[in-house]
Amino acid sequence: MRQRALAATVVGLVLSGGLWLAPNPRPVEAQPKAGEGPLPSWNDGSAKQAILEFVRATTDRAGPGYVPPERRVATFDQDGTTWVSHPMYTQVVFCLDRVPAVVKEKPELKDKEPFKTVLSGDRGAIARLSMKDLGVILEATMTGMSVEEFQAEVKAWLATARHPRYKRPYTELVYQPMLEVLKYLRANGYKTYIVTGGGQDFVRVYAERVYGIPPEQVVGTAGGTKYGFDKDGRPFLTKEPKLLLNDNFAGKPEGIHLMIGRRPVAAFGNSTGDREMLKYTTVQADGPRLGMLVLHDDAEREYAYGPARGLPDTKVGTFSVALDGEAKERGWTVISMKTDWKRVFAWEP
Amino acid sequence: MRQRALAATVVGLVLSGGLWLAPNPRPVEAQPKAGEGPLPSWNDGSAKQAILEFVRATTDRAGPGYVPPERRVATFDQDGTTWVSHPMYTQVVFCLDRVPAVVKEKPELKDKEPFKTVLSGDRGAIARLSMKDLGVILEATMTGMSVEEFQAEVKAWLATARHPRYKRPYTELVYQPMLEVLKYLRANGYKTYIVTGGGQDFVRVYAERVYGIPPEQVVGTAGGTKYGFDKDGRPFLTKEPKLLLNDNFAGKPEGIHLMIGRRPVAAFGNSTGDREMLKYTTVQADGPRLGMLVLHDDAEREYAYGPARGLPDTKVGTFSVALDGEAKERGWTVISMKTDWKRVFAWEP
Repeated sequence: MRQRALAATVVGLVLSGGLWLAPNPRPVEAQPKAGEGPLPSWNDGSAKQAILEFVRATTDRAGPGYVPPERRVATFDQDGTTWVSHPMYTQVVFCLDRVPAVVKEKPELKDKEPFKTVLSGDRGAIARLSMKDLGVILEATMTGMSVEEFQAEVKAWLATARHPRYKRPYTELVYQPMLEVLKYLRANGYKTYIVTGGGQDFVRVYAERVYGIPPEQVVGTAGGTKYGFDKDGRPFLTKEPKLLLNDNFAGKPEGIHLMIGRRPVAAFGNSTGDREMLKYTTVQADGPRLGMLVLHDDAEREYAYGPARGLPDTKVGTFSVALDGEAKERGWTVISMKTDWKRVFAWEP
Repeated sequence: MRQRALAATVVGLVLSGGLWLAPNPRPVEAQPKAGEGPLPSWNDGSAKQAILEFVRATTDRAGPGYVPPERRVATFDQDGTTWVSHPMYTQVVFCLDRVPAVVKEKPELKDKEPFKTVLSGDRGAIARLSMKDLGVILEATMTGMSVEEFQAEVKAWLATARHPRYKRPYTELVYQPMLEVLKYLRANGYKTYIVTGGGQDFVRVYAERVYGIPPEQVVGTAGGTKYGFDKDGRPFLTKEPKLLLNDNFAGKPEGIHLMIGRRPVAAFGNSTGDREMLKYTTVQADGPRLGMLVLHDDAEREYAYGPARGLPDTKVGTFSVALDGEAKERGWTVISMKTDWKRVFAWEP
């Protein structure tokens, strides 16, 4: 019951606009210095060059690669592409953190798996949970409430949760070079989209503030909702445990068609989950296309995994040896965090 | 086989850009005359006044009803709201017209219902087909092909099909006063969306040209697609007979959340299928909201149905006596075509 009261308070805050108007504690994005060109956090090299050349070619009205403004669609994966996804996807951390509240609401779950393991706090055991177990947790923590309640929960969590290594809010773990690419593309008439395997409703909560991307340009894994009325007769939507779009692997181009209805001309990813999106964007295209993959090879400033460690393809999706080979074959540009990025985060000294 | 060859030609034209670049034979929208204010095709009256006052209130930075630009979302039903939907939904006409081509591809359907009835050309029998029969026809004519093939089919059909009464292309049967509202809202920072029970992929083909609404701002009934490769190795999507979103009645607010992720502040409809969208937009809102319903009471220039004829609610969705009563109760503005519109179509003398 206390949980319900809390939820009601949170919803009240949202509806009154109080929570949404809370000031952002610090700017996430570094501001460009006077005299700097575009992409100031990028070192000169083939990756930076590929972006500049692509934009030049597609915006040159007189050139053969010209793309009219309405077709300038650029899609960005999120986890590992625009922000840190290690040691665990941020959204999964959110869901695990929400388990105690869910169990308080439904005490009968306390001794049931996988909730029992999560409540134990045993990190090793939690890390060994199966995908199926994670699915149960995601469903229990992300459905059954109103859209507004969910948004308020995410917002409240983001305000207090800290990354275990960086000791900073997760929204400060966005890659400054990618924020610059987003801004540079938009300045050149591109509409930028997040196309994430993560939850659409989750990412929409902060995408506008953090990436400058409004909710309607966030495509993600999405569940159904159910229309109904609250006690005051106000219509609202309840998040249902019904999967509409699994926005990963082939689900990415399918989601892009559903939500955007145009084929992108630029796509950015970092894992096998982005492969189909990059193919859909670049293979057999009738003009210049940009496919880019972020390689996590910087254990010092971020993490090193994937081909840097000789990893094979996985179902979860990581930058694999196979994907690295495919990138070479298809002309996708690999972005080395270590070599291509002058700095990774806005707050670096 | 000839059908396949035709389809291949059509796809070839699309991929080469040839079909898309075909010039639009005549302008759909009338151009404003010098010295005219906004909404020139509207007579002075409560409907025009409601629109002007809503825009004034929500864009007045100093006023209590101010809506920041990013929240300015306006949603429009299509059939009966922005274009003629009588005597039959345009998309249904398209599907019926496509039946002979489908039967040529699959001759085994020739003697099967409901295809047999459609092929008979017996208008009375066709009009009596059940919703279930129509569903079978829609599935057979709108799925199984690539997205690009489907778009080309719709485009080719729109170029030649004529409305039985007006003898004009369907895309010329858009309501000039509603085009002016769309333009006026956009000029005031509103993002305009079509939210239709019709097929999302169908409406997207012409929405940009006809309404100035890009594909990514068309929300409609949507099916799944399946990612694959054509014979040249180019990735493409096949339209699948799997319903993802039934964008009518409660499906409209659900679709709005899925595709836009914000609650609209203005919504326009004409039938019971729009009721939940208007409620979601206006009921218990924290500021000025606009809900409008087009009343078809002009048999001379268009059609007269709904409350004008004392019709009750139907499952298909029409402006009913009940909805008329609800409009009064909720402060939704009813637009009388006969009284409020100086002219209905751009091409009127």
